[in-house]
Amino acid sequence: MKSIERYAVFELELAGTPEECQDADITACFHNDDQAKTDRITMKGFYAGNGKAIIRFMPELEGVWNYTATWGEMSVKGSFRCIANQGQNHGPVKADGMHFRYADGTRFIPMGTTCYAWIHQTEELQEQTLATLQKSAFNKVRMCVFPKSMNYNRNDPDCYPFERDALGNWEISKPDSSFWEKLEKRIMQLGELGIEADLILFHPYDRWGFADLSREENLAYLDYCVRRLAAFRNVWWSLSNEYDLVFTKTIEDWDAFGDKVKETDPYSHLVSAHNWLEPYPKRDWMTHVSWQGSSMQEAFKLRAKYQLPTVVDELGYEGDIESDWGNNSAFEIVNRMWMAVAFGCYCTHGETYYREDEVLWWAKGGRLYGKAPERIAFLKELLEQLPGAMEPVCRNVMDDPTSMAKSPEHAKLVRQIWDNRPQNRNVFINEFIVPIGINPDYRLIYLQRHCNAFYDIELPVNGEYDVEVIDVWEMTRKRVMESVSGAFRINLPSKEGIAILVMRRSGELLA
Amino acid sequence: MKSIERYAVFELELAGTPEECQDADITACFHNDDQAKTDRITMKGFYAGNGKAIIRFMPELEGVWNYTATWGEMSVKGSFRCIANQGQNHGPVKADGMHFRYADGTRFIPMGTTCYAWIHQTEELQEQTLATLQKSAFNKVRMCVFPKSMNYNRNDPDCYPFERDALGNWEISKPDSSFWEKLEKRIMQLGELGIEADLILFHPYDRWGFADLSREENLAYLDYCVRRLAAFRNVWWSLSNEYDLVFTKTIEDWDAFGDKVKETDPYSHLVSAHNWLEPYPKRDWMTHVSWQGSSMQEAFKLRAKYQLPTVVDELGYEGDIESDWGNNSAFEIVNRMWMAVAFGCYCTHGETYYREDEVLWWAKGGRLYGKAPERIAFLKELLEQLPGAMEPVCRNVMDDPTSMAKSPEHAKLVRQIWDNRPQNRNVFINEFIVPIGINPDYRLIYLQRHCNAFYDIELPVNGEYDVEVIDVWEMTRKRVMESVSGAFRINLPSKEGIAILVMRRSGELLA
Repeated sequence: MKSIERYAVFELELAGTPEECQDADITACFHNDDQAKTDRITMKGFYAGNGKAIIRFMPELEGVWNYTATWGEMSVKGSFRCIANQGQNHGPVKADGMHFRYADGTRFIPMGTTCYAWIHQTEELQEQTLATLQKSAFNKVRMCVFPKSMNYNRNDPDCYPFERDALGNWEISKPDSSFWEKLEKRIMQLGELGIEADLILFHPYDRWGFADLSREENLAYLDYCVRRLAAFRNVWWSLSNEYDLVFTKTIEDWDAFGDKVKETDPYSHLVSAHNWLEPYPKRDWMTHVSWQGSSMQEAFKLRAKYQLPTVVDELGYEGDIESDWGNNSAFEIVNRMWMAVAFGCYCTHGETYYREDEVLWWAKGGRLYGKAPERIAFLKELLEQLPGAMEPVCRNVMDDPTSMAKSPEHAKLVRQIWDNRPQNRNVFINEFIVPIGINPDYRLIYLQRHCNAFYDIELPVNGEYDVEVIDVWEMTRKRVMESVSGAFRINLPSKEGIAILVMRRSGELLA
Repeated sequence: MKSIERYAVFELELAGTPEECQDADITACFHNDDQAKTDRITMKGFYAGNGKAIIRFMPELEGVWNYTATWGEMSVKGSFRCIANQGQNHGPVKADGMHFRYADGTRFIPMGTTCYAWIHQTEELQEQTLATLQKSAFNKVRMCVFPKSMNYNRNDPDCYPFERDALGNWEISKPDSSFWEKLEKRIMQLGELGIEADLILFHPYDRWGFADLSREENLAYLDYCVRRLAAFRNVWWSLSNEYDLVFTKTIEDWDAFGDKVKETDPYSHLVSAHNWLEPYPKRDWMTHVSWQGSSMQEAFKLRAKYQLPTVVDELGYEGDIESDWGNNSAFEIVNRMWMAVAFGCYCTHGETYYREDEVLWWAKGGRLYGKAPERIAFLKELLEQLPGAMEPVCRNVMDDPTSMAKSPEHAKLVRQIWDNRPQNRNVFINEFIVPIGINPDYRLIYLQRHCNAFYDIELPVNGEYDVEVIDVWEMTRKRVMESVSGAFRINLPSKEGIAILVMRRSGELLA
């Protein structure tokens, strides 16, 4: 009996399928006899060209799985053994409260990057992108199914998701196998590197007509896409890059897409929709927030409002091109990422250094040239060492910020303004939403660009705590106090990009 | 006949004035016989203690002035000759359109600093403050009449503006001469250094009761203050520091103060009111905007709305204390000041480096320790060399931002959003309000924290222009192109804090 690792892809090739059969008629029913409680899982297949249909299945439980596949008038039965997952394979990532976890229980700390159109470049460049990713700390890539048309993105890809008819219109019912095989190969290669493929299903930067398909065509495309790719454990469904810039689609269209993906995907991969200016409204199909914006305070507010794990999937790019979103300093990007993290959010990198050959990482992949990536790796390493995820400290600040005042004098002033000037309340809310992450065993205070000479901290008196001062740019961690408790002052180097990490050694919890 | 420089103080001492006489009864009428068109100017005097009343007069025209002074039942006539002003004496600063100019026509480019309570410190420290100012490029100081109570401001001054009664209440009708003589001396010393005294008449940081006086007491204080100080050419009246944090006063109170100052001051010195969060509404008595805020885009908007010269009188302080407004990096302060300037605004510096002796420049004066002042001097020197003031480039952006789009593609997108999503318009407004100052003879483009590798510029084809690249932190100016015209690309060093200055050599004007 064939053995398949848990969360790997079991693939059933159904030869001799006529093209006319089409995808809707190809299904298989899977059942695990070793696990009494398991429901039968029905998987739809897809036509893969050359008279071949394929049904893919990702077993989520160990033991023997039996299946019956039918296509057209034909059917076949079989079974395989699912064995333990190992190595980089921890299964698909799921939302876990306000954070993320792999299906096997391992924590997943998203630290993504952005290569929108990397699979639409030359073979050589794609290989270089993979090699760069392998050396990096990134564990998620935002990438588009459709090719991309905008500045620095003027080249045509060698293949497209669909074939064209004689008039040049896309035939959604005729997927181009060479495209989908390439996409699958890249998704699998990312999986081998422990990298999640955050697949962007639609986006506005189009000159080929993919942004102009009808709702029915879009739903047919999604149906095919999900049947074909859902068995890959490292797939995330991102309905959109900047849904609110796709003027050919309404919110009803997007919701239909979200529902379609949710109902078609038996594994419940993560689903989100990325915005330009207007955060996508909270929806049932939405597993997490995928947000664009440069204010991490706003990310915090959205997280609090939606009560979903929140990824700042676009916070500006490190680079030097002419567009303001693409010429942030490395420090600014690192700064925003530390803020996001201390607010209990996650975040995604991108790089846009000008190059005459127009190969910019954010769109085409290739090489990284910036100074942020190694600092992001430093941050990720720290987060991996911490015993559990953090929550932002000021959860209830929007209801009563006076509770966060720093002194009785300050509280009095806040109270006066809160009561007398409702129009100024937002300033206090923003003042009190500061990037401090807490956990029973640690506290992470990120001082952003503030150049404090000191920081007054108050810890429980019934406990012992160690204090580290972290320079996020220099990537240094200095233990400045050991086994302290109560209130005291920490001297700091009066510069931007300083974090304070308090670790509990014993005694009272910190959250 | 006594000679007095134009804009200097002619002072008339009226001995033998009984204390009961009080200020209202002391007046003098001045007339310049050499200038046919001059009205008679009536000046009120003030009781200066020890049976002595004083009437001060600042002649604004050359020639012979005759006067008649009366106090109680006594009177005296006399005359003096007003001669040309010279040296640092250019007369009082006036609003000149959206900018400033001394009364003698010389341009005034405000580049202020902040020493709120410097006159309330020891004699030695006050002298040190003056010595520091003398070495600096600053030409305006924000300073309070009343002492100040807050963090790092816990000491009592040696004297107060008024005497106290037996119960310890302030007697507004009994000014303390020692205080006012000290204040006058300091104002005059600033004047000799070419520095404007931006006198803050009220503020919220009080523990002595000065913020709690009644409206009548406040008006009496203002009456005295203006009669006593208006003849000093370098006085500006700043009704408030942070009017909207003084919870004992209403907007009607503040307006009454503005009206009072305007009607009492025969020289029409500059009058403003400084805010915390809510810009003071535009008023007839308001000669310019004195605004607090960290967003220079907002300063630009306020300037456009009020159509008044605008000074960002508090944009954060360079320093490292615990409060976020007081721990900005020097670069951030310099960055904001360049932004303000390229938006056609002016700005004011302040410094809050922590010191154990609690002598922080922003409140007590003393010494400067920061890295911003020399860079501000560099900026001021550049502005002084430029042939005239600049206007921000995008005056009408709030009506139609599509006109500022960078390409047809961009314009189309902006139009779609402008028409379909009114709620997102503000983002475009902010995007298009970029710090670019224009003048017929030059254009100053400030790139803020953007790290551009290049900048595409379009100049008239019928002219010759020189291009400089300025590094605002390194204080370097490099001429990168000479006698160019039309459209071209300027290569830049991909770092924060870069400005581009285009100077017209000949041909078509730049604005």
